[in-house]
Amino acid sequence: MGQDRVLYGYWRSSAAYRVRIALNLKGLAYESRAVHLVNNGGEQHAPDYRALNPQELVPCLVDGGQVLTQSMAIVEYLDETHPTPPLLPADPAGRARVRALAQVVGCDVHPLGNLRVLQYLVNGMGLDESAKGVWSRHWIGEGLRALEATLSGHVATGRFCHGDTPTLADICLVPQLYNAIRWKLSLDDYPTIQRIYDACQALEAFQRAAPEAQPDAPAT
Amino acid sequence: MGQDRVLYGYWRSSAAYRVRIALNLKGLAYESRAVHLVNNGGEQHAPDYRALNPQELVPCLVDGGQVLTQSMAIVEYLDETHPTPPLLPADPAGRARVRALAQVVGCDVHPLGNLRVLQYLVNGMGLDESAKGVWSRHWIGEGLRALEATLSGHVATGRFCHGDTPTLADICLVPQLYNAIRWKLSLDDYPTIQRIYDACQALEAFQRAAPEAQPDAPAT
Repeated sequence: MGQDRVLYGYWRSSAAYRVRIALNLKGLAYESRAVHLVNNGGEQHAPDYRALNPQELVPCLVDGGQVLTQSMAIVEYLDETHPTPPLLPADPAGRARVRALAQVVGCDVHPLGNLRVLQYLVNGMGLDESAKGVWSRHWIGEGLRALEATLSGHVATGRFCHGDTPTLADICLVPQLYNAIRWKLSLDDYPTIQRIYDACQALEAFQRAAPEAQPDAPAT
Repeated sequence: MGQDRVLYGYWRSSAAYRVRIALNLKGLAYESRAVHLVNNGGEQHAPDYRALNPQELVPCLVDGGQVLTQSMAIVEYLDETHPTPPLLPADPAGRARVRALAQVVGCDVHPLGNLRVLQYLVNGMGLDESAKGVWSRHWIGEGLRALEATLSGHVATGRFCHGDTPTLADICLVPQLYNAIRWKLSLDDYPTIQRIYDACQALEAFQRAAPEAQPDAPAT
């Protein structure tokens, strides 16, 4: 059951979702430990978890004694330590393109809609609950517009964001789209993104990583 | 004058500042082209620049025909194409640590205080101008607290964030501290970060990359 590899995550966390996809694509077994981001005042703030990750965010992967944080760094670590199948292209220009696509999501979209940010908009800045949706839709829309413009018609775009196998870019894109759909954002303006999303969701590695497939997801 | 390498940036952009540090550490000449983020309605939104970077953000590095965006991806590209001196450690665990430290800043601090986000808090969410400072200080403080806890007393922390030579982590840290100081955030609670900041600022590569040293910085 992969007891040497423990993923601390939360079913609906986009960043944990990325790491699950990468582990599945690599065929790596792992034990899943839920860190509930709301219950008990947010279990990510508990002293035991904070000792693992002082940022008090999920995910955290403990891999044979290595404590790894930040999902994109974790995916690169998995790619370096388990090179097959590769999650980044072999050439520096291709790697730069994949990392840039991933970082559009990982830096400029996802962190703005993270739970702690939405909570602070209301609790720290005094906005009402409806602000969460306005804010989230705005930044997801900005990111998807840029991604669609970057992906559509580019010679390196294939069945997936870069070529015909999934990379770090797809690993970041799919959880962000899950989130976009949750916020009821129309994807009609992003046909290339939609096509890539469908190609990803056809793969078992992505299906098994889905929030609703996790042991800590609420029963529906 | 390095005409084959053109950096589109802005003197006070943290992300452009990172790329300048990396180019200087590598000893790579480049031509600097200013994209003024406020004047003329924001030159990053002009059609010519948007064609280079659909995200309408700086920096963008055009390197011998390659159009590169997202500062952390650019630094990794420079490191792969010009390996000396290395900006990431050789071992996967060390690389994961450096990337995670960089991403604490690059994902979870800097994007929240970016110009477009501060503008949207006021123009989109209806908060007043003072909200910008409250918001910025909150997220920078969260990030620095986590970084101090991660860096202090860790065996891998050296003269710099990881060992005794500057890495991607320091390249992200220094511009964020420049920003923290601009928001008048006290650094008293972060002695390890302060020590590393001072070590970086003693290096010519960091000095030459400073906002005030750029050709587009306003005369003081």
